[in-house]
Amino acid sequence: MEEINLLADKIRNGDRAALSRGITLCESDLALHKSQALFLLDQLYPFTGNSIRIGVSGIPGAGKSTLIEALGTYSIDRHQKRVAVLAIDPSSEQSSGSILGDKTRMEALSTRQDAFIRPSPTKTQLGGVAQQTQTAILLCEAAAYDVIIVETVGVGQSEIAINHMVDVFLLLQIVGAGDDIQAMKRGVLEWVDMVVFNKADQGKETQARVEAANMSKALGLFPSKYAGWSIPVLSCSALEKTGIEAIWETIISHQLHLNQKEIFKKQREDQLNNLLCSLEAQVLRVFLAQHKKINVLRKENQLNWQAKEVPPFGVLEAFKKQLTKIFLEEE
Amino acid sequence: MEEINLLADKIRNGDRAALSRGITLCESDLALHKSQALFLLDQLYPFTGNSIRIGVSGIPGAGKSTLIEALGTYSIDRHQKRVAVLAIDPSSEQSSGSILGDKTRMEALSTRQDAFIRPSPTKTQLGGVAQQTQTAILLCEAAAYDVIIVETVGVGQSEIAINHMVDVFLLLQIVGAGDDIQAMKRGVLEWVDMVVFNKADQGKETQARVEAANMSKALGLFPSKYAGWSIPVLSCSALEKTGIEAIWETIISHQLHLNQKEIFKKQREDQLNNLLCSLEAQVLRVFLAQHKKINVLRKENQLNWQAKEVPPFGVLEAFKKQLTKIFLEEE
Repeated sequence: MEEINLLADKIRNGDRAALSRGITLCESDLALHKSQALFLLDQLYPFTGNSIRIGVSGIPGAGKSTLIEALGTYSIDRHQKRVAVLAIDPSSEQSSGSILGDKTRMEALSTRQDAFIRPSPTKTQLGGVAQQTQTAILLCEAAAYDVIIVETVGVGQSEIAINHMVDVFLLLQIVGAGDDIQAMKRGVLEWVDMVVFNKADQGKETQARVEAANMSKALGLFPSKYAGWSIPVLSCSALEKTGIEAIWETIISHQLHLNQKEIFKKQREDQLNNLLCSLEAQVLRVFLAQHKKINVLRKENQLNWQAKEVPPFGVLEAFKKQLTKIFLEEE
Repeated sequence: MEEINLLADKIRNGDRAALSRGITLCESDLALHKSQALFLLDQLYPFTGNSIRIGVSGIPGAGKSTLIEALGTYSIDRHQKRVAVLAIDPSSEQSSGSILGDKTRMEALSTRQDAFIRPSPTKTQLGGVAQQTQTAILLCEAAAYDVIIVETVGVGQSEIAINHMVDVFLLLQIVGAGDDIQAMKRGVLEWVDMVVFNKADQGKETQARVEAANMSKALGLFPSKYAGWSIPVLSCSALEKTGIEAIWETIISHQLHLNQKEIFKKQREDQLNNLLCSLEAQVLRVFLAQHKKINVLRKENQLNWQAKEVPPFGVLEAFKKQLTKIFLEEE
């Protein structure tokens, strides 16, 4: 594991190529890589946790990348932060992610010395993608990035995942798009910490104020996610870079609120525990995939299904009984 | 299993309450129910497969429910079909589905004798939701519903799932909404069999024709999902019930195309095999959850994590070694 110690050192010293390699290692399916990844995570774990973790969600076209670029650049320039941008995209089954897309879209940010942009891992399994984004967060923190922005792609499942890995969840809306278009899944509002109306470009400021006020009124009808925190509704133009400072300050005051209410530490602990449980489940899956007796039974199932001579679902009932017989009677 | 035989009979005889009970049984997590569900599926399996399975997707506000209502009503009135509407919503973690929503939205269809509307099952796990929708399809077919419409909720993960369970995948777009808003995940276009521009209401027909033609041109640049099938782009007003017949006829000709190319049978077999594999994985999961030795190890992991005295990720490496030691040495 000497090699992994070296990698850990390089990551801590801000070597971007090493950070990329580390994240790739954590995404790998190879058994050796998995052991190395766990070792790497333990090496880096003591140096994690010192960032603001921000989740950004919104329908396609809401301008998530433009906002992230504006917010990231702002926090580097005005607050001397180091910014890492990660993406979570559970739907990227066929296409191999959007590396080029992200880099092109966040042109200004991607050239900054203090920014690190990583596209979404491509896994079919949602547990996988969430888990990989969570380990990437830890690695970026160990590399001294102190603002981590996680962008969701898609509406639905990815919001659940992101809600379990960030401190503050920002929902982006579009000024003037109409309720029909941006109608959010009911569930999403239960996880949101702040709402931002984007595309409040020059001339649209009044409209933005009206829509933000309406949404604020509507949100007042829902119970808060945390006691004492009513969801702020802001507006901005990510394109014209207006309203960015207010977003930053709201994120900071949310962070303070979580700290004061002693929610912060508990939430981070829960998130780590979730990650560990998800990795535990993965270890079990990998173990089972290598288990000879189980593999023999599964092959028999496939043959039965191909032969089509027995009722297909009954094969599973028999499988269950065999598993129980072989593995439970041994105890 | 006498009781399940009786339930199977009732489902085959068109008893809607029995069909609902059967679907609920297949969604249950109880071990007894799981065995009963497998038995029920084998009883009904010989009577499945005789439907057109249609997937409908599109962003929130595209008018999916309105289209499904129009298409469903049309196929009952004009083609004496019996229509079942299922929903797949992997994001429904917190809220308990949208029963009321669906019933209210599809008011006309829900009162029809020949229609059956079932809201999305509510599971956190995507595998779970997809699997439950697939078993619900089989049950509806056994109950002699010959048009099964599966509606996706959300953009992203659910399209992947739906693509693995239907014959024809219909993507709904909105006339005049602008590319920005409806920008689809790149992946989705690879699964689409037909595109329909909705909201081509009176006065918007020309605009709809132009947008449909543009999209058709753009789609020509992509390779087809099936040889010889170029993706038709239609337009309709689900609200004013125009263009519905053309949608129906396109679905039928797609079905014919799949049959001629001998894709149909193969695709259905693959889908069944996927379902069986997903159920097999579930059997394994349930088995593991009951396994004493594994549970002891997992409890030790939790205690280690709580104590915070050992590196948290190393606990997983140790877990892997223990699993291997206990279960592989036995062989």
